[in-house]
Amino acid sequence: MELIIGPRLYSTWSLRPWLVLKRCRADFTVREIDIYSEAGQAELEQISPSRLVPLLKVDGETIWDSMAISVWCAERYPEVRLWPADAHARWLARSAACEMHGGFMALRTECGMGPDHTMVGADRSPPPGGKAVERDIRRIISLWMEMRRRFGAGGPYLFGDWSVPDAFFTPVATRFRHYQIDLAAHGDDGSAAAYCDTLLAQPDFLEWTAEALR
Amino acid sequence: MELIIGPRLYSTWSLRPWLVLKRCRADFTVREIDIYSEAGQAELEQISPSRLVPLLKVDGETIWDSMAISVWCAERYPEVRLWPADAHARWLARSAACEMHGGFMALRTECGMGPDHTMVGADRSPPPGGKAVERDIRRIISLWMEMRRRFGAGGPYLFGDWSVPDAFFTPVATRFRHYQIDLAAHGDDGSAAAYCDTLLAQPDFLEWTAEALR
Repeated sequence: MELIIGPRLYSTWSLRPWLVLKRCRADFTVREIDIYSEAGQAELEQISPSRLVPLLKVDGETIWDSMAISVWCAERYPEVRLWPADAHARWLARSAACEMHGGFMALRTECGMGPDHTMVGADRSPPPGGKAVERDIRRIISLWMEMRRRFGAGGPYLFGDWSVPDAFFTPVATRFRHYQIDLAAHGDDGSAAAYCDTLLAQPDFLEWTAEALR
Repeated sequence: MELIIGPRLYSTWSLRPWLVLKRCRADFTVREIDIYSEAGQAELEQISPSRLVPLLKVDGETIWDSMAISVWCAERYPEVRLWPADAHARWLARSAACEMHGGFMALRTECGMGPDHTMVGADRSPPPGGKAVERDIRRIISLWMEMRRRFGAGGPYLFGDWSVPDAFFTPVATRFRHYQIDLAAHGDDGSAAAYCDTLLAQPDFLEWTAEALR
């Protein structure tokens, strides 16, 4: 089984299924493609019809898209609880992960990650402004606060125990750190900041960042 | 159970879970909100923390996001085969639906649907151009051709029998029709056009359009 990813330093979509596969203790290798280089683009064109990463090569098939790979993991490793066991928590966990999968375009654009804006540190440039990114940040914080309020008794992650939405929101935590977003100024009562800290201290994420900096 | 949607004439995201719920023969009511009006925006703010449609109100919970609702349906109605039974087809069906869920921004922007560009007819204005939308269209057509080639023996839909990706691609077929996209000029060998025709002739979609025009 091989996971094909973009540069670990800034490929936010690649990090997500990597975290999920690690959670499953899956036996997989990683191929990192420098998608910003010409050679990388040529390599990608050969193996990725969508020209996107990540891809999972398994059982003679190529599965693409971070969410599709995550759901494949849930099917392949049913003993690992990738989604909450509680039905209501599970429905909302899927809603939250899917909202991230399809949305928050302003945050993704204005707080972009790339060669100059990596997932492993903080930036000193002024944080981005503008109504659209402001709205995205407020929405994410209010979503996090609500889920932590409802499900926080079970553990430090969004729905208590670690689940797929935590993989999907880890790169948001890196964006908030990198762009030095003042969460309290966007409505945080402290629980969103604490959740960010939890994501950024998660051992699998620390392993990813250590590999990224190697 | 209540599905909250945007205007049937042009809310592409609303159509998707509606098609899935219809496929399940779910017993549900529909609330249509005119999201372009001030009153509609105020109503939405009350019930939708993400300020987006669609929403499914069920069992005292509000599930949001078209994909999360579709996956909820697969869980609630296991007797309805919403994803292909064949494992490889299922993995790719999820990849295809998720690629649509998270991508094709150029197509969604440049071939937008709204009060002046509805899902129920063709437009006479010249089709949009530009490299990004061109690439999206070519990618969708090559994806459709490949899946039809591999799985077409089982029926006229993307993976043979109807499955969730067909719900996700139905609004693409309406965009292709509305903006009069020449599929053959974008690499179609005829199978993508035939698949479009299948989606646009599907009885549930015809019921949606009849309600939209009422």
